[in-house]
Amino acid sequence: MAGCGSGLCCCCCPRCCGERESRTPEELTILGETHEEEDEILPRKDYESLDYDRCINDPYLEVLESMDNKPVAAGSGIPEIKCYLNGVKVPGVVRLRTVVCKAMGVLFSVAGGLFVGKEGPMIHSGAVVGAGLPQFQSISLRKIQFNFPYFRSDRDKRDFVSAGAAAGVAAAFGAPIGGTLFSLEEGSSFWNQGLTWKVLFCSMAATFTLNFFRSGIQFGSWGSFQLPGLLNFGEFKCSESDKKCHLWTAVDLGFFILMGIVGGLLGATFNCLNKRLAKYRMRNVHPKPKLVRVLESLLVSLTTTVVVFVASMVLGECRQMSSTSHSGNDTLSLQGMSEDVNSSIKTFFCPNETYNDMATLFFNPQESAILQLFHQDGTFSPVTLSLFFLLYFLLSCWTYGISVPSGLFVPSLLCGAAFGRLVANLLKSYIGLDHIYSGTFALIGAAAFLGGVVRMTISLTVILIESTNEITYGLPIMITLMVAKWTGDFFNKGIYDIHVNLRGVPLLEWETEVEMDKLRASDIMEPNLTYVYPHTRIQSLVSILRTTVHHAFPVVTENRGNEREFMKGNQLISNNIKFKKSSILTRAGEQRKRSQSMKSYPSSELRNMCDEHIATEEPPEKEDLLQQMLERRYTPYPNLYPDQSPSEEWTMEERFRPLTFHGLILRSQLVTLLVRGVCYSESQSSASQPRLSHAEMSEDYPRYPDIHDLDLTLLNPRMIVDVTPYMNPSPFAVSPNTHVSQVFNLFRTMGLRHLPVVNAVGEIVGIITRHNLTHEFLQARLRQHYQTI
Amino acid sequence: MAGCGSGLCCCCCPRCCGERESRTPEELTILGETHEEEDEILPRKDYESLDYDRCINDPYLEVLESMDNKPVAAGSGIPEIKCYLNGVKVPGVVRLRTVVCKAMGVLFSVAGGLFVGKEGPMIHSGAVVGAGLPQFQSISLRKIQFNFPYFRSDRDKRDFVSAGAAAGVAAAFGAPIGGTLFSLEEGSSFWNQGLTWKVLFCSMAATFTLNFFRSGIQFGSWGSFQLPGLLNFGEFKCSESDKKCHLWTAVDLGFFILMGIVGGLLGATFNCLNKRLAKYRMRNVHPKPKLVRVLESLLVSLTTTVVVFVASMVLGECRQMSSTSHSGNDTLSLQGMSEDVNSSIKTFFCPNETYNDMATLFFNPQESAILQLFHQDGTFSPVTLSLFFLLYFLLSCWTYGISVPSGLFVPSLLCGAAFGRLVANLLKSYIGLDHIYSGTFALIGAAAFLGGVVRMTISLTVILIESTNEITYGLPIMITLMVAKWTGDFFNKGIYDIHVNLRGVPLLEWETEVEMDKLRASDIMEPNLTYVYPHTRIQSLVSILRTTVHHAFPVVTENRGNEREFMKGNQLISNNIKFKKSSILTRAGEQRKRSQSMKSYPSSELRNMCDEHIATEEPPEKEDLLQQMLERRYTPYPNLYPDQSPSEEWTMEERFRPLTFHGLILRSQLVTLLVRGVCYSESQSSASQPRLSHAEMSEDYPRYPDIHDLDLTLLNPRMIVDVTPYMNPSPFAVSPNTHVSQVFNLFRTMGLRHLPVVNAVGEIVGIITRHNLTHEFLQARLRQHYQTI
Repeated sequence: MAGCGSGLCCCCCPRCCGERESRTPEELTILGETHEEEDEILPRKDYESLDYDRCINDPYLEVLESMDNKPVAAGSGIPEIKCYLNGVKVPGVVRLRTVVCKAMGVLFSVAGGLFVGKEGPMIHSGAVVGAGLPQFQSISLRKIQFNFPYFRSDRDKRDFVSAGAAAGVAAAFGAPIGGTLFSLEEGSSFWNQGLTWKVLFCSMAATFTLNFFRSGIQFGSWGSFQLPGLLNFGEFKCSESDKKCHLWTAVDLGFFILMGIVGGLLGATFNCLNKRLAKYRMRNVHPKPKLVRVLESLLVSLTTTVVVFVASMVLGECRQMSSTSHSGNDTLSLQGMSEDVNSSIKTFFCPNETYNDMATLFFNPQESAILQLFHQDGTFSPVTLSLFFLLYFLLSCWTYGISVPSGLFVPSLLCGAAFGRLVANLLKSYIGLDHIYSGTFALIGAAAFLGGVVRMTISLTVILIESTNEITYGLPIMITLMVAKWTGDFFNKGIYDIHVNLRGVPLLEWETEVEMDKLRASDIMEPNLTYVYPHTRIQSLVSILRTTVHHAFPVVTENRGNEREFMKGNQLISNNIKFKKSSILTRAGEQRKRSQSMKSYPSSELRNMCDEHIATEEPPEKEDLLQQMLERRYTPYPNLYPDQSPSEEWTMEERFRPLTFHGLILRSQLVTLLVRGVCYSESQSSASQPRLSHAEMSEDYPRYPDIHDLDLTLLNPRMIVDVTPYMNPSPFAVSPNTHVSQVFNLFRTMGLRHLPVVNAVGEIVGIITRHNLTHEFLQARLRQHYQTI
Repeated sequence: MAGCGSGLCCCCCPRCCGERESRTPEELTILGETHEEEDEILPRKDYESLDYDRCINDPYLEVLESMDNKPVAAGSGIPEIKCYLNGVKVPGVVRLRTVVCKAMGVLFSVAGGLFVGKEGPMIHSGAVVGAGLPQFQSISLRKIQFNFPYFRSDRDKRDFVSAGAAAGVAAAFGAPIGGTLFSLEEGSSFWNQGLTWKVLFCSMAATFTLNFFRSGIQFGSWGSFQLPGLLNFGEFKCSESDKKCHLWTAVDLGFFILMGIVGGLLGATFNCLNKRLAKYRMRNVHPKPKLVRVLESLLVSLTTTVVVFVASMVLGECRQMSSTSHSGNDTLSLQGMSEDVNSSIKTFFCPNETYNDMATLFFNPQESAILQLFHQDGTFSPVTLSLFFLLYFLLSCWTYGISVPSGLFVPSLLCGAAFGRLVANLLKSYIGLDHIYSGTFALIGAAAFLGGVVRMTISLTVILIESTNEITYGLPIMITLMVAKWTGDFFNKGIYDIHVNLRGVPLLEWETEVEMDKLRASDIMEPNLTYVYPHTRIQSLVSILRTTVHHAFPVVTENRGNEREFMKGNQLISNNIKFKKSSILTRAGEQRKRSQSMKSYPSSELRNMCDEHIATEEPPEKEDLLQQMLERRYTPYPNLYPDQSPSEEWTMEERFRPLTFHGLILRSQLVTLLVRGVCYSESQSSASQPRLSHAEMSEDYPRYPDIHDLDLTLLNPRMIVDVTPYMNPSPFAVSPNTHVSQVFNLFRTMGLRHLPVVNAVGEIVGIITRHNLTHEFLQARLRQHYQTI
């Protein structure tokens, strides 16, 4: 709580509890006397949430009436996109500069022969295009700025980022459905049919556009589409001459499950090594000058090149071309593919009619090497495959995390394909299972290893099915991925989650553990509230904004008995009390309103009956004695004028006095109101306050002015701001005894940023944000809960 | 409001507004003085909602601690499953008897040569299996009853139905991903990753099982899987000899869009005719004896057979076998398919070396006829195609809706394929576009017509892509479906929605129109509440349950000032007031609790400070004079003892007095409590009430005992029931000024059944159910809103 101890902040922590409440999860962990491994990384509090819930305030209704410093370009970008879609604002992740650096970087890193893929960066690039294009402006290029007032909200932007990321997947893998599911799996909170349809269309259009240009540029016949995406796995097909051949049989499923287990173990090892490496880099490389990072990248390049050459020279085997089995195929459908596969064989100092198997894998682009492993009939020697796997495993593990844009999909697939092909070779030679199809095993091996590394499920299954264009592979791929994920999850998290974790991003999982239902909203909420009144003086607003870092403030009124007395003296207070009175809808009042609106109803008699009740709506004014008694009864808070600063002498009762909840207002909204001078003077009615349109309120999105940039000399501190037309008057709220799973579900599903906790009589008792729902925070609370009982 | 006017019902409608509020949407429409077409069908109120929200009450927490008469078999079943997944309980839809009738029926209707498909019934059957199997009991076979206490909730059952329906699609079309998306599109409210994964796995397993048995039974080699689902569209492939041939080009997209428009128009015509027919049947066939329906089915069969024969004899053309173009293919990969296609050609009285094109379409199973249109190189004459389309269109339109299980997918695909092939023929012969691939046009025609009829989008796209096993068709299929849907939606709804509508099922759409945001929760809620108190006498509960039909009751307490006085006389009232006091969590109290729980905190001084405050928690008891004044102030409701029946003389203020909201209790829960004798006598404490476990509470799911079956002689009407351990203490609630889009979103996404509307001071002012959110109800309210302002 940055606001604690500051004079003007309306809510401060009482001495006996303040430290306890402002405790970060780290401190809670210590407090709970449990000893985690000391270098555990906990979610950081300085990440902002995105706000997916729509704020339907007055300006929005009017629309209805009219109708960081360094670009985040290193790495694959998938962890960043995952965070963004999860609802965390990672600074600079969707900037134009980032995508330019990324695209240039990946061009060189792939062309330079590093063991990196271009798929992750493509997905990230797609997301940036999605975020930037509909805004028609850019921070990096300030000249690009049209007067385009739409899509200026976190909600719209996140939808566009979803579509962009899906388009990236679609283009990279030729998998439009897989891309759509990727977006859904990583980000979308609720199944929004309209959005899903748009995302799918965007993905299809991306595939189409890519193939249109490929058909013209690469194959010379513009507009004839028979080509899948950039990465395709070729056609898995038995040769017609071999009637016994089957792509897979029920018996093979057993081997696939075993391969899934091994893939999970290998993936867990990969992730474990990579995590240690990343931690080492965080401690020893990142604090040093940037030149060190460049040198590390150069070292990786150098090592890669040397290993590739030496391994091919020393460890490769010269093997016979297997031209026999091709004679039947060369005439027809498999022709194209076989030619492709054979043309990428590397002789590399081998005699005629033979080829170097190691060089064939190392000196081809990764995609060709994958095709070799999937479709080349000539066998690779088991020794070559083992060595290739080991070298590739270690080098790609070292490479992922250096400061170049680098994907992980294709290296993992290649690595895994070598493993799968090795298994097939071993089964064929040592167990004598001649009927098995090596390509299928290579594919399953690739799936097992990739699944073990990234631990994605639904979308990865669909992406791989679409890349193979073979629906019958669905079940084996799915089972393999599932087994690999379960095995890997036994040891550690997926590689993307590990990197998300290393940054301390407060990512929300899909569900909470059942155990967490022992906690309730009141156990996890933040009870120290900084709040504003419906009508607040500018001086109070400025001091609240300057002394706290909260992004939203509840709009509350005091829950006093002696309101009539308060109303007499002070325009501000009486405005607040009037607002409170008018905002509370009662059953009787609603009933009266409804009966009154029955203008077309025939019986005038009934209407008269209703009017009668309306006449008694205003409570009688003559209760002077009673009123005085009442005031005396409610006097524990002697002089709490809303714009008065809390005093150090307040008792806890005073500090935590009951407050009726009316709505939420965002920091950005308050600052915008101040900047644009929306206020009225005490002598005037609040109706004289100037009104802002929805476009004016959202014009500065996503970079609203900072309160510290505000020129205070332009503002009269005694003026009053009526925030009620601009606040969100009906945010979702929960009762204090709501269970954590329900809170989590609501928060995650609705994409909330702030969730007020309101008790049975409408008083706000706390607020829940993303940080109160991270796994680490909940666990700390649960430990505390067990200690208490 | 069935409870109105009954003596013991706690809440009755005041004379001046009662009729107005109990008005069904029909009456509202009349009231709003708008004249709809008189036979418009409005959502019926007698459909029950399912409850997807989990009720976490005390028994659930204990688990945590320990850890109609006629089977609904006619028609396709997809509308019923759509309703069920949408959250509406359609009686008998997931019964064992239904699936048996369905399976037998579809066997005979398909074998009998009716123009019906088996896909819809298969999807329905899958859903029934999903609903029934995990329950391990059946209503139809009472002997099947194991002691299996899990999955006894609407939530679990709906998840299983989702998976079952997806498995049905997967088996029917060989489209596991499409099946999963079908479930998501039709039912799932929020993107639940775990559920999606389970559904996908279930679909894959269904495809696998089907193919396993097909591989053995149909092809004689058990366990070798290269076969897609029951319906497959064959392989779209250019013959290798024709280098110019392309499946589709960018230019073709223009034709596809036009075909989409025509498909949409044809679909709208089909739906319009079918709707009129269905209405005619509802008025003239259904009220008559069941024999009439059988006769109608027989008439349809007879007509179909006669038409098929006469059309083939009289209108078919004898055409040359096109053996020339096959010579190249017969050797290799297309062999199987070409043989299939050629073997299903029908000579039908034609001379040698020729075949009858009409008979080839009519006398084959529908799947073979579709393959003929997709892959047969021999041209069908345009006249034949036009006549076939027309006859098939009319006959299948007549057939869909008779009392036999009948799907619509395959007839629509066949009809549309004829249309597409016709377009291809016309383009080839009259415009001279020789390079186009007829099969693609037939496929697009099929998609266009099916899309125009059913108006499905995402899942249908994926199902068709998976059925063709050709990812490159993604974009044209998608664009065609989109155009067909938009065109069709201009005229009417999809066929399933029409049939859902004809039954008056209150289906919730995906979103509300933007316009509806002019309404707020208070405008659409039901303000007449029937409620219970935390502690209620059995006599009150029984009379409430017997005189109303509501499925849930808010648990409320009176919002009185003179509580102390009330508490003196009456154990019941004092229990209720005590509950209210204990249930309201305050900020100060919470703060105190938190500081108290800091047992491990080092400073004993701080703890003392906290204890000090706790001492003052109880308010001082000496306010006698004030208390008396207060009582006088709050005396508009003279003697409202909670178990007293409302009096006819009550004023509106008394009827609609403020009530603090504490939770929701279901009718089924109340009846279970009464049946199991959960109560305590006035002389005892509420702690003496027996406790029920979670298993005991849910044992009778889904058919709880009826209140009218209760033997009242076993119950002492003066006993008191404490409902608080069994109610849902934290249902989602909204404030009265929440906009309709937010209410709708919350309701739909969280799968709610009852949504209380609670004002800023915690008083319940109304309740929102599915019926308050149907399109028709919202429109009636909006018209009223416009009239009022």
